[in-house]
Formats: sequence, C-alpha cells, structure tokens
Amino acid sequence: MEPIEVKREIIRFGDGGPMVLEDTIVTEYTVTIKVNGEEFVTMVCSPAYIEELAVGYLASEGIIRKPEDIEHLWVQEKEGFVHVTTSRHNPLTRTLQGKRYLTSCCGASRQGFVFANDALTVKNVSKSRVTLSARDCFRLMEEMQESAEVFQNTGGVHNASLCCIEGTILTRMDIGRHNALDKIYGHCLMNKIPRNDKIIVFSGRISSEILLKVAKIGCPVVLSKSAPTELALKLAEQLGITTIGFIRNSSMNVYTHAERVTA
Amino acid sequence: MEPIEVKREIIRFGDGGPMVLEDTIVTEYTVTIKVNGEEFVTMVCSPAYIEELAVGYLASEGIIRKPEDIEHLWVQEKEGFVHVTTSRHNPLTRTLQGKRYLTSCCGASRQGFVFANDALTVKNVSKSRVTLSARDCFRLMEEMQESAEVFQNTGGVHNASLCCIEGTILTRMDIGRHNALDKIYGHCLMNKIPRNDKIIVFSGRISSEILLKVAKIGCPVVLSKSAPTELALKLAEQLGITTIGFIRNSSMNVYTHAERVTA
Repeated sequence: MEPIEVKREIIRFGDGGPMVLEDTIVTEYTVTIKVNGEEFVTMVCSPAYIEELAVGYLASEGIIRKPEDIEHLWVQEKEGFVHVTTSRHNPLTRTLQGKRYLTSCCGASRQGFVFANDALTVKNVSKSRVTLSARDCFRLMEEMQESAEVFQNTGGVHNASLCCIEGTILTRMDIGRHNALDKIYGHCLMNKIPRNDKIIVFSGRISSEILLKVAKIGCPVVLSKSAPTELALKLAEQLGITTIGFIRNSSMNVYTHAERVTA
Repeated sequence: MEPIEVKREIIRFGDGGPMVLEDTIVTEYTVTIKVNGEEFVTMVCSPAYIEELAVGYLASEGIIRKPEDIEHLWVQEKEGFVHVTTSRHNPLTRTLQGKRYLTSCCGASRQGFVFANDALTVKNVSKSRVTLSARDCFRLMEEMQESAEVFQNTGGVHNASLCCIEGTILTRMDIGRHNALDKIYGHCLMNKIPRNDKIIVFSGRISSEILLKVAKIGCPVVLSKSAPTELALKLAEQLGITTIGFIRNSSMNVYTHAERVTA
C-alpha cells in the first residue's frame, strides 16, 4: 500500500524570514469500488484499511447487509480498485443511490432523511442501555486524541474511535471525514463486533451525514470535540442517539438523549 | 429562506455540574438541482446564496461555461429545488460525472485528476502575475477570520473569501467545505468578476477537491490556516497555483509556486 504521509520540502515564512525545511504531508489515494463488474463509486481516502473501507461503505449504502453477502473481495492496490462480487442482489439500493428521499406531502422529508438509501440502512438504538458519565466522555476523547497523535504530524486527517466504557477498541484515521467511520464499520462487520453497546468518538463536526454513519454502524452514543448541526440533532433524537459535542478540557454539551449521561 | 442558525436548549456539563442553557446551532438545508427537468444532484448546504451555489456548482461540473448558458433559473425555496434550463447541451459532461479519470497506461491518472470532468474544467493560471508578501497573507487571513466571526457562534461552518491584494471582496460560509467555494464561483460568474488576479482564503484543509475548486474558479493563489494534502500540491504545481498553508500568527508555509511570494 502507498504511504499515508510523505516528506516534502517547503518554505516557512516566520519571524526570522523564509527558511527551507522538510515537512510531512498527508497523501490521498483514489480507489474505485466495482460491484459485480460495474463501477459503483470512486472515492478519495487515506491508503490504509482499504478492505474495511469498502466493506463499511457497501454496508452503509445498503449494498450488503453482512460480510457473508460478499462472495469475493480483491483489493488491486497499485491501480486503486476494489473488486467485489456479491451474492445478494438488491436492485432497489442501486436505483436509490444519491436519490433524494421524498415523501408524498412535500419536497423535504419530515423525517430528516436526505437520501432514500439512508432511511433503509439506519438502525434505531433507542433500546441500548449504555450509560456514561461526563468523566467517561473526557477520558475517551483524551484517549482518541492521544492515539491520533501518531498520525497528526500532518494536521490533515480526521480520526474516529470505537469505544466501550472501559476504553478504546480501535481508532481509524482518514483524510475523508466519513471514510474514518466506514473503516470502523467495516472492521466491526468483518470481526463480528456488536455495536449497540459502544460509543463513537469523532474528531470533526457532527453533520447529518456523520450522524447517519453512526446510526448505520448502530452505536447509541457519539462524542465530538466540535459542533453538531440542527439536522444531525433532529435525526439523533428520532434514532435514539446521544449526541455530545464541544468536549474540551472539562466541559461538554449534551444535545440529545441526555438520559444516558449520569452525573 | 430558512435561517442559517437556530436556538436550541442544551445541557452543558462543566466544573459546576450540569446546566441547561440556550445554544446556537447551525442548520443544514437540502437542495436538489434539476437541469432541464432532470434531477442532477442533491446537496446539503447552508441556506444562503443558493442561486450562487447552483451557478458555481454547474460551472464547476462543466454543465455551463458562462451564466448566459443558463436560460432560466428558479429557486423553489421551501421545497428545496433549483430548476435550471440551459441552452448548452454537452452530453459528455453528464456522462462523465463522477466517473474516474483513467489514462491508457495505468489505473491512476498521472496528472493527478481523480474525476474525468475535472480535467475539462480546471484553468491553468501559470501566467497570472499576482505577487504578495507574507504580510499580505497574514492580513488577508485575519480579515477572513474577522468577517467570519459573525457566522461562527456555532463553530460549525467553513469560510472562504475572494480577495485582491488590497483586501477582501466577498466572504461566503457554508457547512459544506466546497459549497463555500462554489458560492464564490457563482457570485464571480454572475457579476463578471475576473479571477486570475485574485486570491482565495479558505478556513479548512486544502485537499485535492478544494484545490480543484480553486483551479476551476481560476485563482492563482490559495491561502489556508490548515494543512494541504500531497495530491493537492501535485495538482497545484501543474496548474500554476501558489499554495500557502498553516497561516497562524506570523508564520506560514509556502508549498508550491513560491515565486509569487515576495520577501
């Protein structure tokens, strides 16, 4: 696989005038997923855990429901292709891809879904009994930031962790916000890790797209050091997800389903 | 148009224990662009300057070359549709949308283009004679951050400015990184503002996608307070764009085409 970061000569302008030095720059890798011989999507990502990314993405889009739906998966690294053959044929998900979710009453979906496929692939986690304290949140965020430092020479990536209350299970980085979450989803599916008692910790903003990824993975709690959007919160309320943002030092905001947060 | 931010009750956990308070949250707006009656794209954006966004996006995708190619444009606000009729029919750009750019020799494009349409719509700005000093860069970044503060109660948006050496011409915000740039592009086209002597100031990372947007707008310089990716720098070198990142306090990194930066 290609490196996730490379060295490069740059010119730094500082107080002492311009200076040539070597810097570390994050790379981008282009990968096209072909499903049963047909080009399905082309994505730009960090070149690591490509198999997890493909499995997570296809599950997230509803093309597969479980890893066994994949008969064969081959990562053609140098050329940047993932060739997937599936046993399951659901022409609906393909037709709906990128199509807007329209209800009969008006243009905008009252449920808050933007794309039709999302309504089919999210999980409702209202019944999850996970609870956590503010202290747990601070600790898990700190763990993610520490494990992410390895990759953060470059300042150019997003990080996501899958955690239980006791600690971090795995962390994935990617230059693409949602790719980091797809890699976590793929890893969980490939390793049969249950998610409805787990927590997602994310380095970026919680947009509706990110909230939907969390709902597709099936986690009842998402923690972020950044802000959520209104649409993300609307979806989180409906889908039973606890959303906590602006986790910084010893302060945090709980936006939805605060019943899971203990004092 | 819907509001770009709303008030919402949240629970803040801080040193003094949990506290209910009112917070400001950024909104997301779903808009579907229909071209000549056909659904072209559905995007999630901040609900402001939707016409600029549509014009900029269609130009960026090669559907139109100039605003006159649009015969009629109607923003159906409440329902979230933009209806566009165009005089120009280029079935090629439609066919190529989202398709990977493949060269005959190998899977990955040696030019660094990921999508085929990009190769058709970027501009080479090598001949632009703009020069600027480190001090200009610090000042323009500061101007963007000041004008952006109005929108940054929520912490959830990206900002982009179009500038000349003398100062900022316009700033656009959006929850979507590339939407902010499409709005600037649309504004320039609709108001016939030349770009090959202008500078883009951007709040986020410079990924290949962002660099390509700058190249499509036709600006020879991009400034960011964050990091670039390797692929973005490869494209910037080829397309003649000066890339400057990590502009913070009185330090900055020049990555490509440093000949435009004066000491």
